Amino acid sequence: MPIPTISLTTDFGGVDHYVAAMKAVMLRIAPNVRFIDISHEIPAQDIMAGAWVLKNSAFLFPPGTIHLAVVDPGVGSERRPIAAKIGGHFFVGPDNGLLSLIAEENISSVVVLENEAFFNSSRSNTFHGRDIFAPVAAHLASGVDINEFGSPLENMTTFRWARPIADKEGIQGWVVHIDRFGNLITNIPKELVKEVMGEDHFKIYVGNCILSNVVPTFSSVSDSEAAALFGSSGMLEIVVNKGDARQMLDVQKGAPVSLIFNRK
Amino acid sequence: MPIPTISLTTDFGGVDHYVAAMKAVMLRIAPNVRFIDISHEIPAQDIMAGAWVLKNSAFLFPPGTIHLAVVDPGVGSERRPIAAKIGGHFFVGPDNGLLSLIAEENISSVVVLENEAFFNSSRSNTFHGRDIFAPVAAHLASGVDINEFGSPLENMTTFRWARPIADKEGIQGWVVHIDRFGNLITNIPKELVKEVMGEDHFKIYVGNCILSNVVPTFSSVSDSEAAALFGSSGMLEIVVNKGDARQMLDVQKGAPVSLIFNRK
Amino acid sequence: MPIPTISLTTDFGGVDHYVAAMKAVMLRIAPNVRFIDISHEIPAQDIMAGAWVLKNSAFLFPPGTIHLAVVDPGVGSERRPIAAKIGGHFFVGPDNGLLSLIAEENISSVVVLENEAFFNSSRSNTFHGRDIFAPVAAHLASGVDINEFGSPLENMTTFRWARPIADKEGIQGWVVHIDRFGNLITNIPKELVKEVMGEDHFKIYVGNCILSNVVPTFSSVSDSEAAALFGSSGMLEIVVNKGDARQMLDVQKGAPVSLIFNRK
Repeated sequence: MPIPTISLTTDFGGVDHYVAAMKAVMLRIAPNVRFIDISHEIPAQDIMAGAWVLKNSAFLFPPGTIHLAVVDPGVGSERRPIAAKIGGHFFVGPDNGLLSLIAEENISSVVVLENEAFFNSSRSNTFHGRDIFAPVAAHLASGVDINEFGSPLENMTTFRWARPIADKEGIQGWVVHIDRFGNLITNIPKELVKEVMGEDHFKIYVGNCILSNVVPTFSSVSDSEAAALFGSSGMLEIVVNKGDARQMLDVQKGAPVSLIFNRK
Repeated sequence: MPIPTISLTTDFGGVDHYVAAMKAVMLRIAPNVRFIDISHEIPAQDIMAGAWVLKNSAFLFPPGTIHLAVVDPGVGSERRPIAAKIGGHFFVGPDNGLLSLIAEENISSVVVLENEAFFNSSRSNTFHGRDIFAPVAAHLASGVDINEFGSPLENMTTFRWARPIADKEGIQGWVVHIDRFGNLITNIPKELVKEVMGEDHFKIYVGNCILSNVVPTFSSVSDSEAAALFGSSGMLEIVVNKGDARQMLDVQKGAPVSLIFNRK
Repeated sequence: MPIPTISLTTDFGGVDHYVAAMKAVMLRIAPNVRFIDISHEIPAQDIMAGAWVLKNSAFLFPPGTIHLAVVDPGVGSERRPIAAKIGGHFFVGPDNGLLSLIAEENISSVVVLENEAFFNSSRSNTFHGRDIFAPVAAHLASGVDINEFGSPLENMTTFRWARPIADKEGIQGWVVHIDRFGNLITNIPKELVKEVMGEDHFKIYVGNCILSNVVPTFSSVSDSEAAALFGSSGMLEIVVNKGDARQMLDVQKGAPVSLIFNRK
């Protein structure tokens, strides 16, 4: 039988003991579980950045993987702790929109974490990651049924986030993420471009740059030249071959990216 | 039987190969061990920062866990390499005060690492983490008795560090750690506040800010408002709800935090 | 039977989902594999920095370890994807010089990755780490013979990199890496110094500093004093005891380091 896997996505960073505290708690409950870190460098309290990372990685894991996701600026407040089964995977974390982009898949069940038998016996008000979410994830990994943790939740919190706008002029989107290489990842999916714009009869406006087509890969253009391509997650990306698009185009996260039909 | 766990706490950072070198050496000796990284971002050569992280995480792990802790500015000098059994856990590293805050628990045994049969056959003078501490940790994980590694040490190095001062005016402590979120973690434990100050008849002076009470959690105050609360490790913390206390209060590590009785 | 180990060395950083995407793909193919991260903080697109980290860590792992190494500025271009068996270990990644310093060991076989049955069924042009290299590494871990992946490659790309020059004046090398502590690691191996320079009849010129001998370890000199020593990887290093040589000597990566015979 394969080892149960728990992935971890947080804004805890690498300096503090917070991630290790969660893993330590889980090992006491599920001694043979496997941990895979997705990212602990989500910008502090940036729920949507966490949602973006989850969207791009969670469903690549084997079905049944348990995803512990804690970006939790409202810890200790009224926001609910939840567990969800979505698209054949499990998710545990705060009900604050962190699962907004995961919730596009088929939702089997969502429960509010209420059964304190599955929490740490002593609990802080400021670290539910260690005291509620980690133990629940570990109990899930040990085979506890999701309905044991609490009662069903009908209205999981999701935000209508990062949706581009299409009209007769073209598509208006923006830069939702800039990766380690300085690639500008937009919220414009390949399918939408194909559907709305067709092939190659449009220009792309971003930062100080106008691009006249979408190319297959980095090396389709010269070194240090800007290009638009469909990236590994299926979104339109603005990149520079062997360079850093953020620096060269002087573009920040949130900057508009416009696809405009060529005038005939 | 659960897989033996080795935790790692170092100041090696994430760029170099140093952490992987230790893990590689251990896998040769104990092929089925599990590694959990506590932190490799301890500030370079900052023994007390390492001691602080260990204090807050080590005993959360299952009993019997082996904690490999290497913050070792004196590598290659006269400082002794040690292994210790404390509070039912094992610790391996330099005898330089790194275990000062762990040693508050029950110490079963401390030995000087002398038996070269358990070291790497070739040893550098500058990387005992790879050549002495990692192989000893792996042999411990393989079931070697701690007394096999060397003779008992009576006087393990510990520093009387980070102890606040209480007098008739109140409690004088300081900021011992600032976490990823900018929370100011003090050396003032909840028990001491309860014992010395009682409830709510005191003010807290820190940086450019005076606070008049301790609240349960972040959301007890408005967004961007400063607050004092007892954090997840049981210490008084100065925080800003959905904000960064370091920036907003302009406070650095080491800054004084005073609890002063209200004048009647 | 020991768990198969896959090490990972990339320039993907810790913020994005890229490393987790590779691990997720591998877990679907080889559910019980073990991952050890060597480094994901190789400077973006710096092939030779990746080669240096691999040289210093790969062969410390148990024989048979699979090393997935992806620093791949030419992804999607004509550069070939390869798998290699070298010195009893396996390596999977782009054929762009990343294995230049590994290739000094005994090369058993190198194959071009051609058999698409072992790739992801859908493949991007910009993330061969996830779509080609990770699945091949996982299939290797599952016992697939290296020759199943494609046909032999005669001329693997390697660069003659980082070789110091020795002449009758002495040895001319340079700083190839600066580690987390600010230690200046040169490309001058201990063996070459012993062979060419003999013992202690030379001076070492680096940055704003002249050193008159090689010492055994950091504490051979006073605190904050500069020293030359042979480091844990067998190379000449310029260090400062309990200090940061990069800062104190004002030296950057690439700076010359000269060993010059004393004039009689």
